[in-house]
Amino acid sequence: MSSNTTHVAKTVGTTSIDAGAVLEAAARIAPHAHVTPVVRSRTLDALAGCELHFKCENLQRMGAFKFRGACNAVFSLSAADAARGVVTQSSGNHGAAIALATRLRGITAHVVVPANASAVKRAAIVRYGARIVDCAPNMPARDAATAALLEQTSAELVHPFADPRVIAGQGTVALELLRQCDRLDALIAPVGGGGLMSGCAIATRALSPQTRLWGAEPAAACDAHDSLQEGRLITDRTPQTVCDGLRGHLAPITFEILRRELDGILLAAEDEILAAMRLLWERLKLIVEPSGAVGLAVVLRERERFAGQRVGIVLSGGNVDLDALPELPELPRLPGA
Amino acid sequence: MSSNTTHVAKTVGTTSIDAGAVLEAAARIAPHAHVTPVVRSRTLDALAGCELHFKCENLQRMGAFKFRGACNAVFSLSAADAARGVVTQSSGNHGAAIALATRLRGITAHVVVPANASAVKRAAIVRYGARIVDCAPNMPARDAATAALLEQTSAELVHPFADPRVIAGQGTVALELLRQCDRLDALIAPVGGGGLMSGCAIATRALSPQTRLWGAEPAAACDAHDSLQEGRLITDRTPQTVCDGLRGHLAPITFEILRRELDGILLAAEDEILAAMRLLWERLKLIVEPSGAVGLAVVLRERERFAGQRVGIVLSGGNVDLDALPELPELPRLPGA
Repeated sequence: MSSNTTHVAKTVGTTSIDAGAVLEAAARIAPHAHVTPVVRSRTLDALAGCELHFKCENLQRMGAFKFRGACNAVFSLSAADAARGVVTQSSGNHGAAIALATRLRGITAHVVVPANASAVKRAAIVRYGARIVDCAPNMPARDAATAALLEQTSAELVHPFADPRVIAGQGTVALELLRQCDRLDALIAPVGGGGLMSGCAIATRALSPQTRLWGAEPAAACDAHDSLQEGRLITDRTPQTVCDGLRGHLAPITFEILRRELDGILLAAEDEILAAMRLLWERLKLIVEPSGAVGLAVVLRERERFAGQRVGIVLSGGNVDLDALPELPELPRLPGA
Repeated sequence: MSSNTTHVAKTVGTTSIDAGAVLEAAARIAPHAHVTPVVRSRTLDALAGCELHFKCENLQRMGAFKFRGACNAVFSLSAADAARGVVTQSSGNHGAAIALATRLRGITAHVVVPANASAVKRAAIVRYGARIVDCAPNMPARDAATAALLEQTSAELVHPFADPRVIAGQGTVALELLRQCDRLDALIAPVGGGGLMSGCAIATRALSPQTRLWGAEPAAACDAHDSLQEGRLITDRTPQTVCDGLRGHLAPITFEILRRELDGILLAAEDEILAAMRLLWERLKLIVEPSGAVGLAVVLRERERFAGQRVGIVLSGGNVDLDALPELPELPRLPGA
């Protein structure tokens, strides 16, 4: 792929990614990515009324699962393609993930970053050595800047989620989790662009078909939920949510996968997400970003649905701007530890 | 021990605790305490110019190493002594640790808590089911309340650090760390009352005599540092530091052990401690309380002393009041990841 057009043709039409691609991704990224731990908490189990297994992607390199997909894409490139570098667009963790993955491969990266990106995530992109190209904070500006860069550099586009290589890489989260913790009744992951959930769904359906698959989304950014409900891809919203990683919408490829594989998408209010994040900080002693706490938030909201089950929850990232922390509400009632 | 007088006689005069006591403690607490992980960070190694191995006692049960000593003391009691319950005094983690350990043994606990204790630590004592006895925030008031309680209840005193059973329990931190990570050039732990450092020193001198032992203390609460320097136990200060776990002073038993075993106590400024804590939050994605970040702070301050070494640092606890967070400064210059 050396142009934007080719890329669009290749990804939009292709939903044939399978568990084999996830297994290949796992082998490809193994020398670079961490096998992240799965942690438990007696207190949170008691609070949720079920058995929670937290997959700690906040402890992944550069602090989020995004490194898996970026690493798989970057190390999939032929030597000739790699030599031309990589272009991507990202307001956050994917940009930093591409920056780190390209540094490890020794090639250049250009990241289109909107003006409203989190300071800490922008700083990470710079720290890992990628070149930042600024753009206005809207999708047309982002796409125009990306297209201009691709034209200019002949570099390879690695989209944050509308890319089978990225989706396969993200699927290694579920692959690992199912090896670390078998017989899961349910697996829950946050849904933004849908790359993580799509990859996890593909891996889980193949390896553990009885496991139910739930996406978790902020009610304030419920475009994926509504897209599945209405059976059409909704892309015209600009949601406001504290979950800066979940403001995007699905792409055709992730919409197709999630429509086919998911049991549903569950929603949580902003306050519930922040209270869940606070619990993870206080009880697990783990820094998880708001986007990464949505899974716990939906379980605590829907206790009856998960009562007594063995539930895997992906804590997707831990890159928080400590200088711009919102108020952290507590849950209304916290039962004894 | 069934009275305050007996306790004082027994602990003040006894410095004969040895590595065997630490091994016995390890066996005694094994059914209850976590073997905590040791974590690494490429970024922090690069920043410090040495190889850092972080022992994650913030991931210990109830969020701090204090559970080890409390658990060892409580499960050392004879059935008859245990039946009378336990008394302690604590503004923080030791109180919660005694509360949890006594709950696990099914006996009662009374904890004397000064009025200025951290809200989150007070809440933990209540949550684990201990009875709180309030007192004014000074040592005479604390001691008077404790003596009255002992008289009233005939319960067993388990002092936060002037108790060989507690010191032996805390020593299991070093025992584990040395098993998880051999050939340490240096081991660093924070010093408040000196229980953790004393136990770790005893275990380390026996198991890894070539490992240098450094205490870490806030410069704003440098009573242990000055006590060792001046060769006399200083107990008449009321230090102000963000490290609420390190405001106490040594007891005769810990003074004797540290004077004999330590290579020295290193100091860090308040800003350096908070910057180190911020680094642990941002880079390790681990919630560590200020008292737990002093070890990293002294390593970053004294880079030449530790250059190229293999250094174990005890992250002693993770119980932070998220509603009362101070400003978190960054280090002046942060080299690339």
